[in-house]
Amino acid sequence: MLNFIDGGVCAARGFRAAGVHAGVKTHAEWKKDVALIVSDVDCSAAAVFTKNVVKAAPIHVDLRHLADGKARAVIANSGNANACAPQGEENAERMCAAAAKAIGCKPEDVLVSSTGVIGQRIHVEAIEAAVPALCAALERSAEASDAAGHAIMTTDTLKKEVAVETTVGGKTVRLGGIAKGSGMIHPNMGTMLCFLTTDIAISPEMIKEALLETVAVSFNRISVDGDTSTNDTCLVLANGLAGNEPITAKGPDYNAFLAALRALCTELAKKMASDGEGARHLITCTVKGAKSEQSAETIAKSVVSSTLTKAAIFGADANWGRVLCAMGYSGEDFDPDRVTVRFASAAGDIQVCANGRGLDFDEELAKKVLTEHDVEINISMGEGEASCTCWGCDITYDYIKINGDYRT
Amino acid sequence: MLNFIDGGVCAARGFRAAGVHAGVKTHAEWKKDVALIVSDVDCSAAAVFTKNVVKAAPIHVDLRHLADGKARAVIANSGNANACAPQGEENAERMCAAAAKAIGCKPEDVLVSSTGVIGQRIHVEAIEAAVPALCAALERSAEASDAAGHAIMTTDTLKKEVAVETTVGGKTVRLGGIAKGSGMIHPNMGTMLCFLTTDIAISPEMIKEALLETVAVSFNRISVDGDTSTNDTCLVLANGLAGNEPITAKGPDYNAFLAALRALCTELAKKMASDGEGARHLITCTVKGAKSEQSAETIAKSVVSSTLTKAAIFGADANWGRVLCAMGYSGEDFDPDRVTVRFASAAGDIQVCANGRGLDFDEELAKKVLTEHDVEINISMGEGEASCTCWGCDITYDYIKINGDYRT
Repeated sequence: MLNFIDGGVCAARGFRAAGVHAGVKTHAEWKKDVALIVSDVDCSAAAVFTKNVVKAAPIHVDLRHLADGKARAVIANSGNANACAPQGEENAERMCAAAAKAIGCKPEDVLVSSTGVIGQRIHVEAIEAAVPALCAALERSAEASDAAGHAIMTTDTLKKEVAVETTVGGKTVRLGGIAKGSGMIHPNMGTMLCFLTTDIAISPEMIKEALLETVAVSFNRISVDGDTSTNDTCLVLANGLAGNEPITAKGPDYNAFLAALRALCTELAKKMASDGEGARHLITCTVKGAKSEQSAETIAKSVVSSTLTKAAIFGADANWGRVLCAMGYSGEDFDPDRVTVRFASAAGDIQVCANGRGLDFDEELAKKVLTEHDVEINISMGEGEASCTCWGCDITYDYIKINGDYRT
Repeated sequence: MLNFIDGGVCAARGFRAAGVHAGVKTHAEWKKDVALIVSDVDCSAAAVFTKNVVKAAPIHVDLRHLADGKARAVIANSGNANACAPQGEENAERMCAAAAKAIGCKPEDVLVSSTGVIGQRIHVEAIEAAVPALCAALERSAEASDAAGHAIMTTDTLKKEVAVETTVGGKTVRLGGIAKGSGMIHPNMGTMLCFLTTDIAISPEMIKEALLETVAVSFNRISVDGDTSTNDTCLVLANGLAGNEPITAKGPDYNAFLAALRALCTELAKKMASDGEGARHLITCTVKGAKSEQSAETIAKSVVSSTLTKAAIFGADANWGRVLCAMGYSGEDFDPDRVTVRFASAAGDIQVCANGRGLDFDEELAKKVLTEHDVEINISMGEGEASCTCWGCDITYDYIKINGDYRT
């Protein structure tokens, strides 16, 4: 009943998008750097923001604009984070005002996001000057979603875009999203921006609840480098054009929507982890047989966050000792003598540790398993019935290169 | 009254040391891999071990051998961690027994440490075979301390050795130590081994107290890669040959000793951070004007642990936004608008952020400042009177290279 479809952030009825080059990224003249997403009608809207004490200016603006749980549009830029920057909130408000004027709504119904360098004044004049062209480019198409998806990329190498279709209350409902990730991605939201659209009819309270539930089990289960940024934002707009009976409480309709939202966000989260800065591998760590899901999550997160484990996967080195080590410092208590570890991929499945002790294994096969792009670390705790999966990536020379000189 | 002196782990009266090649490291025939440190008389002894749930076999053995607070010797090897390995405790006991037999004491008076690969059986027969040569090589000299210091190195590029002399109760007291660090060093003890010797007369209870107090403000304030190992050990032997009135309670003598122990361990900790795997920079982060020392420590640790900050220092990029970002996700609450950040080194001192906002600064000078080996990140919180300093290193291509293929 749940199908992945094309169209990204324009898959849902009544959503148009665009992405153009405004000149925030002064050193890359061809690169799109401003995106706009607009709904034809008012939406229930909700967002989850970074837990970092240092919050970028757009987040403070969005918190005000979301007070009524309603929005019409999102304007976003890459190239400058508008965090710790002079005139931050003033300039974020100017972005909203420019978009509102062009599309004909109140500035308070526009949300704003920024990503890029911290601490420098955002070139808001360039964005304002680009808004007419941005508005003129708005359309409901896969190409438009693609343009918006590219406009929010920083060091990402791939655009992240997913859409799904499901049935809620007898009506076909669509959900889509674009996201940017790369460095600074970590449980509790890294420098990620994620804009979700859906045509479901749902109250502001319930869309917020659904977003919170979903982020906890998708984006908060990935890690790239352990750094949590000042700008992380995941927001959703729901415009009701699917014509379903509006969801105003938990129940079967809410659950059907939640399942679709989780599928959407999990795919976007995996794309982010897979495209971590310089990454060559997507690492999927599943912990089974744990005392609780919380315990399984803490352990799996510790493994995908371990710099040494990430370096071992980069080197296709079946160094399972580092996996045990990362489990051991996760903060969870467990009996190491019950732990089993397997490495798996399309090339095979190999057990490397049983009852906390190393096994003799085929090093040649292990190397093959770990040379695949998608690598699994499967852990069995032998302590209970709970499980959890988290995602990460390896750390490479390119990560250092990208981050050693990001500003220039 | 406190002087740094030569002699390392042999600086204190009555301590002899040696380091030889036994063959634990089969692929490096010339490399010393077993060390022995022996006191002429019984010592008060104490140790601090890793908090990792997965503890290496030698730690379980040491916990038993330290039950009476006494010891005579330490035997240690590099090349194999004897963690998650078959016959782990049995083999660790065999190392103690071999050393005890050669030097003429009880096995329970010998402590044991291992560092290296996890999960493979330690080649204990090679160590046993080497013990006679190791014992024959024992002497009290700078060269002997040097040999022992080299024998515990893994990916370390430099031996870590420090000694100090001070006066306690009218007597000259000496303290010395050797350590190994490199990867996996993190607050809460990384893969570090540290063996301290002193000729002070002190009770087992008080030497333990002094060690705990000191580790908290020295080794636990450094970070290399955030991974905490299975083998971390810091142990101290105090043989009383200085002839001071034995310390059995807190007071002026205890405080004088504590100051010397802290100076010793801080120097060793800085050497470890500075020689983190692949590191080119020692990063010293000092947080001043904080609400409490604990708060200052949490913030400073978060900064020196931030992968993105480490990558920026590697690239000599004055990307202070990452510093603020790491402060923000440290878990401490503070007002970003009061924060000031300066980068400093022998090449200059440059303010890059005031009141949480970026300043225009001389990028050329900033580059020079950050190109020095020793780089300071000085943060002022504007919230109180407390301060704390933590140490770390940059992350480089060589870190990835070293850890991408550690086992081969």
